[in-house]
Amino acid sequence: MTGATDDGAARPSVVVVGHAARDLVLRIGELPGAGASTTVEERIERLGGKGANIAVGLRQLEPHVAPILVAVLGQDAAGDMALREAVEAGIDIRLVVRRGTTALLVDVVDDHHERRLLEHMTEESLLTVDDIRAAEDELSTADVVVLQLQQPADALLAAARSVRRGARIVLDGAIEGEARDELLALATVVRADAEEAAILGGTQVAGVDDALRAARELLAKGPSLVALSVPDAGDLLVWRDGHELFPHGDAPVVDPTGAGDAFVAGLVAGLLRGLDPQQIGQLAKAAATSTVQRLGGHPELGELDDEGEDGTTDADRTHR
Amino acid sequence: MTGATDDGAARPSVVVVGHAARDLVLRIGELPGAGASTTVEERIERLGGKGANIAVGLRQLEPHVAPILVAVLGQDAAGDMALREAVEAGIDIRLVVRRGTTALLVDVVDDHHERRLLEHMTEESLLTVDDIRAAEDELSTADVVVLQLQQPADALLAAARSVRRGARIVLDGAIEGEARDELLALATVVRADAEEAAILGGTQVAGVDDALRAARELLAKGPSLVALSVPDAGDLLVWRDGHELFPHGDAPVVDPTGAGDAFVAGLVAGLLRGLDPQQIGQLAKAAATSTVQRLGGHPELGELDDEGEDGTTDADRTHR
Repeated sequence: MTGATDDGAARPSVVVVGHAARDLVLRIGELPGAGASTTVEERIERLGGKGANIAVGLRQLEPHVAPILVAVLGQDAAGDMALREAVEAGIDIRLVVRRGTTALLVDVVDDHHERRLLEHMTEESLLTVDDIRAAEDELSTADVVVLQLQQPADALLAAARSVRRGARIVLDGAIEGEARDELLALATVVRADAEEAAILGGTQVAGVDDALRAARELLAKGPSLVALSVPDAGDLLVWRDGHELFPHGDAPVVDPTGAGDAFVAGLVAGLLRGLDPQQIGQLAKAAATSTVQRLGGHPELGELDDEGEDGTTDADRTHR
Repeated sequence: MTGATDDGAARPSVVVVGHAARDLVLRIGELPGAGASTTVEERIERLGGKGANIAVGLRQLEPHVAPILVAVLGQDAAGDMALREAVEAGIDIRLVVRRGTTALLVDVVDDHHERRLLEHMTEESLLTVDDIRAAEDELSTADVVVLQLQQPADALLAAARSVRRGARIVLDGAIEGEARDELLALATVVRADAEEAAILGGTQVAGVDDALRAARELLAKGPSLVALSVPDAGDLLVWRDGHELFPHGDAPVVDPTGAGDAFVAGLVAGLLRGLDPQQIGQLAKAAATSTVQRLGGHPELGELDDEGEDGTTDADRTHR
């Protein structure tokens, strides 16, 4: 389904299927020992979850796209707040389901910029096949569908099968079992970190050589572009007739949270812009680099094109 | 100010001056290492803060008393929720001030029942002298005033000076500097853990002998009853002509959070009932023992008298 922008150009339709949650980011000096306490120096509370983060990041990179988010928020005050934020971020929320308790992701970041994540993913916060059925119209007319794989396999398969031929499916994360091969066969792009790549590929990914081998195996199963993050090296993009490693930059990492979500948003923006693989990789890398320079993993990518790849803009943060 | 109960008996007035906050309790298996994540197995979110906990516990122990809470809650959704809960718990909220952001106390409890507390105590969540001035009528007519000492010294002094002669002041915690001696001189009961006792008394409190010495020094400065918690030993109550150690029970500790608040609620209930020091200690100990058997440090003391000292009732928890 393509709409029209003010200048009459086609407006692509993007659906993001994934998790929505409340993010609670706590910056502390040092983690206290057992029985002890410490002061929280900074606290951020807002819309999070990988699906919502990808949608928000994409909207920032491509302001003419209103990503349709397929996700669950609770019927609680946290869900109300998160939904309001999604609307303010320009997300199309018509397919956000409300039930149960909003999932909570507590991100504890210390002065060494080490992150510990405490995830309260309630059962009801996961998507069901019925949720996907309700999204069938949008999925079957979308130009790009992002499937964040931290969801039940039956729901993901139902979503992937609804996508029209010619549209592109972007997979983020990993999934085991029978669903994996069918999803890979339907996908155009796959993005995974080393741990996820090991699950997808069935082999360890310790270095760049491992990652290149794993990516080529994944390419053989369907996708035309594979992006794997390699510990201590960078992000490796591999396509049919080439590959490129985008090394981790020297920019200081404040909080590694959300880098992967921003990277996916960059991949999708690159696809929409019709870039070649190298250019897609540059854009995705710049988005991720910008995100790790801020506490909380929430994308602030709107000024990325103006700021260049270092993305050092100190964007507004919401303290609540 | 004493009101009348349904049966015409005098109804004592109790004011609790202290902190109110939102408690977020997260039960996890093991704390993740740096860079890793873990699943939250249980999550509780509700009214907390030492002042609010003492007021709620006291109301449960003494249902004919509606404790007046002097505390600050934020002008936010968390503050709305906390205030609603205080009303439901039977707290008199007429002196609860609303401003800024509600303080947040994150209590991470692992499978070894070890607790780590991450405290976001905003500046605006602390009481000011103006807040205390607004409470002068209630403070000057109260029968018992609890001062939780985790507040600015000038506000605490203003509160203590407003209390009428003949009323009883219960101090909980520790305070340094000039305010300390004046507060001790005005107090009837002082309760402190070992660390707080060291601050109040100026000496280390490593064992029961230390605690006894420290308590006698505190008695000499004004109060007639001192309760000190001694690590690995129990709670020591010391009064003019006697003392008694209430050892830690054998009951399993699920979460040590809130034991001190429940203990203070028990002390106040004992004072109101006109019990002797040993009986006061028994009641306070039973309240604390009941509280550590539940996750989250929120008192559930309503059935304490029915259940006896072991307090093994598995009271309702609110999962939100």
